[in-house]
Amino acid sequence: MDYRGRQKCLMENLALHRVDNVLVTHPPNVRYLCGFTGTAGALLLGNVGQVFFTDGRYTQQAKEEVEGARVVISRSNPVWAAARMLQKRARREALGVEAEHMSLAARSGLAREASRGTRLRPLSYLVERQRMIKDAEEIRKIRAAVLLASGLFDQIIQFVRPGVYETDVAAELEYAARKAGAQEMSFPTIVASGKRSALPHGRASRQRIPERGFVVFDFGVILDGYCSDMTRTLYVGRPPEQARKMYSAVRQAQQAGLDAVAMGVSAGDVDGAARRVLRRAGWGRYFTHSTGHGVGLEIHEPPRLAAGERELLCAGMVVTVEPGAYVPEEGGVRIEDMVVVGDRASEVLTPTSKELIAL
Amino acid sequence: MDYRGRQKCLMENLALHRVDNVLVTHPPNVRYLCGFTGTAGALLLGNVGQVFFTDGRYTQQAKEEVEGARVVISRSNPVWAAARMLQKRARREALGVEAEHMSLAARSGLAREASRGTRLRPLSYLVERQRMIKDAEEIRKIRAAVLLASGLFDQIIQFVRPGVYETDVAAELEYAARKAGAQEMSFPTIVASGKRSALPHGRASRQRIPERGFVVFDFGVILDGYCSDMTRTLYVGRPPEQARKMYSAVRQAQQAGLDAVAMGVSAGDVDGAARRVLRRAGWGRYFTHSTGHGVGLEIHEPPRLAAGERELLCAGMVVTVEPGAYVPEEGGVRIEDMVVVGDRASEVLTPTSKELIAL
Repeated sequence: MDYRGRQKCLMENLALHRVDNVLVTHPPNVRYLCGFTGTAGALLLGNVGQVFFTDGRYTQQAKEEVEGARVVISRSNPVWAAARMLQKRARREALGVEAEHMSLAARSGLAREASRGTRLRPLSYLVERQRMIKDAEEIRKIRAAVLLASGLFDQIIQFVRPGVYETDVAAELEYAARKAGAQEMSFPTIVASGKRSALPHGRASRQRIPERGFVVFDFGVILDGYCSDMTRTLYVGRPPEQARKMYSAVRQAQQAGLDAVAMGVSAGDVDGAARRVLRRAGWGRYFTHSTGHGVGLEIHEPPRLAAGERELLCAGMVVTVEPGAYVPEEGGVRIEDMVVVGDRASEVLTPTSKELIAL
Repeated sequence: MDYRGRQKCLMENLALHRVDNVLVTHPPNVRYLCGFTGTAGALLLGNVGQVFFTDGRYTQQAKEEVEGARVVISRSNPVWAAARMLQKRARREALGVEAEHMSLAARSGLAREASRGTRLRPLSYLVERQRMIKDAEEIRKIRAAVLLASGLFDQIIQFVRPGVYETDVAAELEYAARKAGAQEMSFPTIVASGKRSALPHGRASRQRIPERGFVVFDFGVILDGYCSDMTRTLYVGRPPEQARKMYSAVRQAQQAGLDAVAMGVSAGDVDGAARRVLRRAGWGRYFTHSTGHGVGLEIHEPPRLAAGERELLCAGMVVTVEPGAYVPEEGGVRIEDMVVVGDRASEVLTPTSKELIAL
């Protein structure tokens, strides 16, 4: 990964944000900028140069992983160590901090440790905005994670039958993921069957898969740091007419969303394209969440594909398109692919079929 | 769980902190106070009564789970919805927020949405301090999680042999955990073999277990919301004298730490008891982290058992005791149990043997 290039790009923006240095502490942002994969680190970039702070637990790991920054092992919290380095600066300087990730407590501590001259300036999504556009190596890694997960789905369908615990299906899926080399799942696996399929976030539970009804699978793997995310919905038993209609409406909405993904289109318009199809088919009020989100080092990252979002899609963004419909106490359907925005055409990364599978 | 009792206890403290209401958003704190297990919720307690805010994805789940609070489904961020409720209050009021969990961005948004009269007051570990003392039902759940994990360890030893990927051992462990009913692992499983055992946080990797050397297993499960945490270190091959000495020193340090856990003893003194043994045996400088931490709804929660921590242990606290020694480029050892502080005696929850197992 081109860590030095990323740092350079970020540092060139500092003047624009009227700060002399920036302190990055959110682990995925730290990893993106210098390669460190641990959880306790702080990267200081700017006038002071490039300095990475961590504690004694990560001495060896930092030495092996960190690129493009000098490593300082501190006895105390790495953030305080960074503040003390700034304390030695002669002139009054401005320090950018991550608005979404720095807590009120951390800011108090930082203000206490840094010199009186240091002004703290919260910056919003500074690193995330840079991370939105994936380079070729990142897209290659994301593609590998997507393909791994897609392959797993085909394997686990055999375990889905009435009477099996949702958690047992999740166990088979996660076992297969590990054996295939996944580092971990990118979020708690959703296996939501029967009435539970109406829960958009129905994590696998100790409920048994019923004789008939939808089963929503929503899962992803992390491979080499990068996440994947996919959803498919099956039907156990013979789907009645109403279930087929619901599935078909969600599938058409998902296709409309995918078709709308293109360079220069706003994130809100992709949401609108999917939502319009569901609304016209009469399912609009059952689609209770936004259409998608960016994916990369984190499972949820900018941009958000939601009503009113004016962010314009650019080549290199990787997003999900995942409309759904959920009828409380009855059941729900969601279909989700990942797609990369291209210069000319966008490319759907997820190869898994979207035909309704009845088991 | 006695959610109403917990809310009452918290609300009785609000006057002490000079706030009229408190807004709780950290998911484990929300869960502790009202039972909601989703990730996007905000609980407002105080003069306004007890009100829980979430978004449309969680309508059904909130209805099923939330106890002791009125549920409001908001179209926007639940925090903004809470702020708007406060906007309608006539007089100037103080709102407590979670200092460790509220980001600078969230505070800006909250300040914008709330009425001008609302003063925000960051409170440190308000709910966590209450959560430190576990009630009988919580201890029962934690004990069940500890026993489940302990049973898994005995099962997976058979998979540990030279040439096997660390991730494959983790796969077997996590599969067995799921099949035994665990909701998920409480943190990314550590399987660190050979030289990697010198990484205190060596997550299972695509490295093969070598012909000889230590293998550190550090893992836990979540059962009914509560976490467990345990570490054992094996030796593959015949352990040389130096390895035996190192193991023995860590084991004695761990025992000294366990022996020190008692009501009225400071957290720092438990750390000191373990550290002293390693220092005297000549391994002091290889023990690069603190001795332990609280465990409950979160894998790491207060108190911290670290040098200088003056928190006094009380009956009902559940902590880990996990000293280790790590020689860079050679190998490391860590041994960890969970222990509950009692009125009279403390009780070690983890039943797994600590004899050095050579495979």
